[in-house]
Amino acid sequence: MKIVALAGGVGGAKLAHGLAQILPPENLTTIVNTGDDFEHLGLNISPDLDTVCYTLAGLANPVTGWGRVDESWNVFENLEQLGAPTWFRLGDQDLGTHLERSRRLRKGDTLSAITNDFCKAWGIKHTILPMTDDPMPTIVDTVEKGELTFQEYFVHQCCKPKVKGFRFEAVEKARPAPGVLEAIDQADAIVICPSNPWVSIDPILAVASLNHACVVALSPIIGGETVKGPAAKMYRELEISPSALAVAKHYEGLLSGFIFDQVDKELKFEIENLGMQTMMTDSLMKNLEGKIRVAKDVLKFIDTLL
Amino acid sequence: MKIVALAGGVGGAKLAHGLAQILPPENLTTIVNTGDDFEHLGLNISPDLDTVCYTLAGLANPVTGWGRVDESWNVFENLEQLGAPTWFRLGDQDLGTHLERSRRLRKGDTLSAITNDFCKAWGIKHTILPMTDDPMPTIVDTVEKGELTFQEYFVHQCCKPKVKGFRFEAVEKARPAPGVLEAIDQADAIVICPSNPWVSIDPILAVASLNHACVVALSPIIGGETVKGPAAKMYRELEISPSALAVAKHYEGLLSGFIFDQVDKELKFEIENLGMQTMMTDSLMKNLEGKIRVAKDVLKFIDTLL
Repeated sequence: MKIVALAGGVGGAKLAHGLAQILPPENLTTIVNTGDDFEHLGLNISPDLDTVCYTLAGLANPVTGWGRVDESWNVFENLEQLGAPTWFRLGDQDLGTHLERSRRLRKGDTLSAITNDFCKAWGIKHTILPMTDDPMPTIVDTVEKGELTFQEYFVHQCCKPKVKGFRFEAVEKARPAPGVLEAIDQADAIVICPSNPWVSIDPILAVASLNHACVVALSPIIGGETVKGPAAKMYRELEISPSALAVAKHYEGLLSGFIFDQVDKELKFEIENLGMQTMMTDSLMKNLEGKIRVAKDVLKFIDTLL
Repeated sequence: MKIVALAGGVGGAKLAHGLAQILPPENLTTIVNTGDDFEHLGLNISPDLDTVCYTLAGLANPVTGWGRVDESWNVFENLEQLGAPTWFRLGDQDLGTHLERSRRLRKGDTLSAITNDFCKAWGIKHTILPMTDDPMPTIVDTVEKGELTFQEYFVHQCCKPKVKGFRFEAVEKARPAPGVLEAIDQADAIVICPSNPWVSIDPILAVASLNHACVVALSPIIGGETVKGPAAKMYRELEISPSALAVAKHYEGLLSGFIFDQVDKELKFEIENLGMQTMMTDSLMKNLEGKIRVAKDVLKFIDTLL
């Protein structure tokens, strides 16, 4: 079974990692949000792409979900001493990634070609694609601070400003990265990972419109809250009650099936009324076993839909 | 006694460090060669400036003379894995310096202002000035490879190509950095540190022409060889026998006094015939005690000249 997974950062990387434990390399392509990409200290940083790559390579920090395991912070220490902007923390090994990506982008290589080479160097066998090679930054419109680039909102402002809406800059000029449309076209099913619908999945859908018979999503909202990140807070600020139902509604018309946590079992009827099949499971992925368990559930569910 | 020291990298930093142990901060200004500066991995690197700063801050690697003590190489490890150009080795803490300098240069700050701030952050009380804030790269003309930028010749090609000559690009547009001419003007004496005459001192002299009553130089060539670096090899390739005499001739007309190692005592008469006073000493600076000893000799010699 050929699967395309759409993923943002930490939550999406977890399910992609689980799927990669089950599916052979040729049967899984993960398409990753690049709307969070930004320039910092003159470096091109792709937070979601790095999180997915590090996770699939077994190099991710298991505590934070982002950054690298056994990381050191010696560059950062000197940067702090010199008074550099240090709101975005950069570990030493992680910095190597940004330095080399930036060097290659400057010499004209594409983000997808660079990502492919990095994956090879890190021993990742499954395909990981950026959604686009073109810049398409996510802009968060806020009540207190107006429009902010995503990392400015997410890391620098710690998600404190109240969200009013989102915009994907230069979306009209952004083309899907090479391989994205082909992977979707050849897939038996598309899996929307448990990532933030507004700022992780919507950017991917904006650049690579999904027209596929079998799309399933796993809710990032469990019992009205997110495991990580501001999705529930965003829903509340947009005056939508955060729930698995709200996520299902977000993707209404796109989904054949929806997977949500068993704690939200009272929402089953309402979600099915949106015109999609459902599956309930223990959707928390606390460790590799949890990721594999949920990935197996997802694939089992897809089997019933095909 | 107010002293201005002209310095390149490792050898120059040693004498400047010795002088800084004796002279109070307001009485020593070190003007550093920036002809070696280059861009690598998108970073602005100032090798000589960093060597002098790290040395005076007590942060330099005592074994290599360049780079930092207790350095880690974690960024570099990932860069190597990703296939980045790694001929110029960059340690983790050192990288912090280049990242922040590059960031500030991009936002329009001058190299001298940045250096001043870095010195404060590192606890350096004596003044360290780049010779110029303008780009003035040293170009090495070689038999086998034609013209090479300095680091390309020095590090990438390991000084292997045979030298034909040197050129300082954009020298006509380079202005002395703020404070350089004032420091020279107010100095009781100028000390030319034991750095490479061709590629460390000549660039400084090219941008800040010395017209001073008391200039002394310490020979970087001892017994026909250099402690470090390609100066002796360059003299041979330019068909000049490398010796303290050759160095004295290089600076002829500029110097009031010349200090050289006692192993070269047979050159005393010939050097004095060039019209300069001489002092012989044990000029090897193997450790901090050696640096202080030589610095004391230099100051004692200057005293006899004033």
